[in-house]
Amino acid sequence: MDNFVFYSPTRFIFGKKEELNTGTYVKQFEGKRVLIHFGGGSAERSGLLQRIRDSLSGQKISFVELGGVQPNPRSSLVYSGIELCRKEQIDFILAVGGGSVIDSAKAIAMGTVYNGDFRDFFEGKAKLTKALPLGVIPTIAAAGSEGSDRCVITHEEGMLKRGAGGEAIRPKFAIMNPELTMSLPPYQTASGAVDIMAHVMERYFSNTEETEVTDRLCEAILLTVVTQLPKVMRNPSDYGARANLMWAGMIAHNNSCGIGREQDWASHHLEHELSALYDCAHGAGLAVIFPAWMEYVLKHHAPDRLVQFAVRIFDCKMNYENPEETALAGIKALRNFWKNAGMPLSFKDLGAKEADIPVLLDKLGVDSHEEGKYVRLDRKACEEIYRLACINH
Amino acid sequence: MDNFVFYSPTRFIFGKKEELNTGTYVKQFEGKRVLIHFGGGSAERSGLLQRIRDSLSGQKISFVELGGVQPNPRSSLVYSGIELCRKEQIDFILAVGGGSVIDSAKAIAMGTVYNGDFRDFFEGKAKLTKALPLGVIPTIAAAGSEGSDRCVITHEEGMLKRGAGGEAIRPKFAIMNPELTMSLPPYQTASGAVDIMAHVMERYFSNTEETEVTDRLCEAILLTVVTQLPKVMRNPSDYGARANLMWAGMIAHNNSCGIGREQDWASHHLEHELSALYDCAHGAGLAVIFPAWMEYVLKHHAPDRLVQFAVRIFDCKMNYENPEETALAGIKALRNFWKNAGMPLSFKDLGAKEADIPVLLDKLGVDSHEEGKYVRLDRKACEEIYRLACINH
Repeated sequence: MDNFVFYSPTRFIFGKKEELNTGTYVKQFEGKRVLIHFGGGSAERSGLLQRIRDSLSGQKISFVELGGVQPNPRSSLVYSGIELCRKEQIDFILAVGGGSVIDSAKAIAMGTVYNGDFRDFFEGKAKLTKALPLGVIPTIAAAGSEGSDRCVITHEEGMLKRGAGGEAIRPKFAIMNPELTMSLPPYQTASGAVDIMAHVMERYFSNTEETEVTDRLCEAILLTVVTQLPKVMRNPSDYGARANLMWAGMIAHNNSCGIGREQDWASHHLEHELSALYDCAHGAGLAVIFPAWMEYVLKHHAPDRLVQFAVRIFDCKMNYENPEETALAGIKALRNFWKNAGMPLSFKDLGAKEADIPVLLDKLGVDSHEEGKYVRLDRKACEEIYRLACINH
Repeated sequence: MDNFVFYSPTRFIFGKKEELNTGTYVKQFEGKRVLIHFGGGSAERSGLLQRIRDSLSGQKISFVELGGVQPNPRSSLVYSGIELCRKEQIDFILAVGGGSVIDSAKAIAMGTVYNGDFRDFFEGKAKLTKALPLGVIPTIAAAGSEGSDRCVITHEEGMLKRGAGGEAIRPKFAIMNPELTMSLPPYQTASGAVDIMAHVMERYFSNTEETEVTDRLCEAILLTVVTQLPKVMRNPSDYGARANLMWAGMIAHNNSCGIGREQDWASHHLEHELSALYDCAHGAGLAVIFPAWMEYVLKHHAPDRLVQFAVRIFDCKMNYENPEETALAGIKALRNFWKNAGMPLSFKDLGAKEADIPVLLDKLGVDSHEEGKYVRLDRKACEEIYRLACINH
């Protein structure tokens, strides 16, 4: 196990109707003038926005609103948000929505108090030291952005999807009511679940030795998704299953599962180019990329962790004479699990084109650096994974 | 799953040699005049105290020292510590040692800034709202006090072992170097591991439904201890196994495993009377009490969770026709596991006397309240558990 620092100071308020207490928590963190940031019309139609407005008003907290965040959130809205926050002298940002909304809010929070282009943080030109405080009310179990200090923005100049982060943008509080996720379409629910699993798997496939406790924590989260997602797909109003998925999504990405070990974010990066180019759901893109990455890995790395994954998560029978077969059975089981939840498994399912692979590779910029840690990936390796992802299943 | 708030803002700095950075972290939390609180001579002999003194001096932080904390920490030393902190105008407490030292430091931290007897907090006469800030450097994987907002003190007037807590005494930082636990005697190491398992099990045995994610997290920690403790018993210098145990001990008690579910602390309370009366190691007492509690539970509650424990933690074969047999096999496996680590399993092993049971029951005060949640325990039930704990295995 490697040395590490673990710090997760967000206050998580979890359960039914907790959004009714939004004003109380904003007040606790001294928010007096709030930007409510959200996505499309569903937060309005469901009555959620109104409940939040009422809760803020109940505490005599004033607010302005900025909606319109798209999936794969765009830099143009971030610029608008920064301008609005400055003009309105906002001192607290409240993100109401999915990972895209939270990430957009984080970018606005960092940009508002920075004398320069917020894009600097995404290009390594500036180090994040301060931001407006923010609170979040997630409406999907997916990105885990409610407990993380990271955000991902699609910069429209070049359509580059890039990440940035630092302690300053970690949410002060997250109000998590699983009921808010019940109205999600099945495709979004499943995409979110894939994202949760991927966040764990990027940490699980690691060369660091003697990491039993984090291995087991990773497996705990994966087993939770494997048992709870089918329940939610059968009955979208299953509160218990929604609650388990939602908390799993937070643990999957506040680094509980990643401390003390080398992590491998190659699949995430390979996917980011897909969702940047085709504007697909991030989780759907991961369902296409991750098993292809695993197939590549099986050819270039000892199969031990793929085997452990197969046996412990999907109860595959251990083949002691030919562990590669067990590993392959695990990859197959993963694809089946995602397919049963309605996820795409290939470029074709996703609406991506094999002919675009050179474009994806160029955007990934993999000529100037290698991707991945568990297995190092050069351009040729990345190309092979994209090609594997073109095979229909 | 029940509604909950989860908040764990301690900064955990984990790994080899990290105690050399103590001064940096104390400075970060604005400590200028520090009380170093510790136990016996081992922290001095090992050179740990000197490394900490040097690190504080390196940051020009002044300090005074108070050693002598005993296992099952006593109120008299807490009073001395409070007096010393006031006299020396201490603004930060640094606890160096096991759970007893950390708990003693927490009690001093709350008492120093309170205009009254610190015992008030343990008797429900006062609500904790402020305390001196504290940092901790644990030297054993056990109590998890480094990540918790609770402490347990033995009040010498009446020899009552009681708990108290509140956000104010949660450590600001915990420096956790697994190397510091390598010199522990095997008995202390094993007692600590039992305490870790018990902290999880008090949360695992719950009537709350639909808690898959916390069930799985509980099992992750239990499986970690079950796989790592034997490695440490074979080779006390196994850094990886020590590291896994140490982090498991933190997760076991910062409530990661307990959120959203009813918890049952009856076994802990039944044990506290044993360690208060006989001054035995808390974990050793738990090794005697917990399986007896499980046997009692099996007679008075559906066996489902005991069965789940048996199958998932100790790989017991599921007996579908007679699940009680599976549950019993799990209890037996737990006792064997603890016995192999040198733990006592009965009153006799522990040096406790069956004739003292009425005294234990009186001190437990179980006439005025019932113990436990998973199964409610009146005086008769508690007596039955103590009697079961008298049987030799």
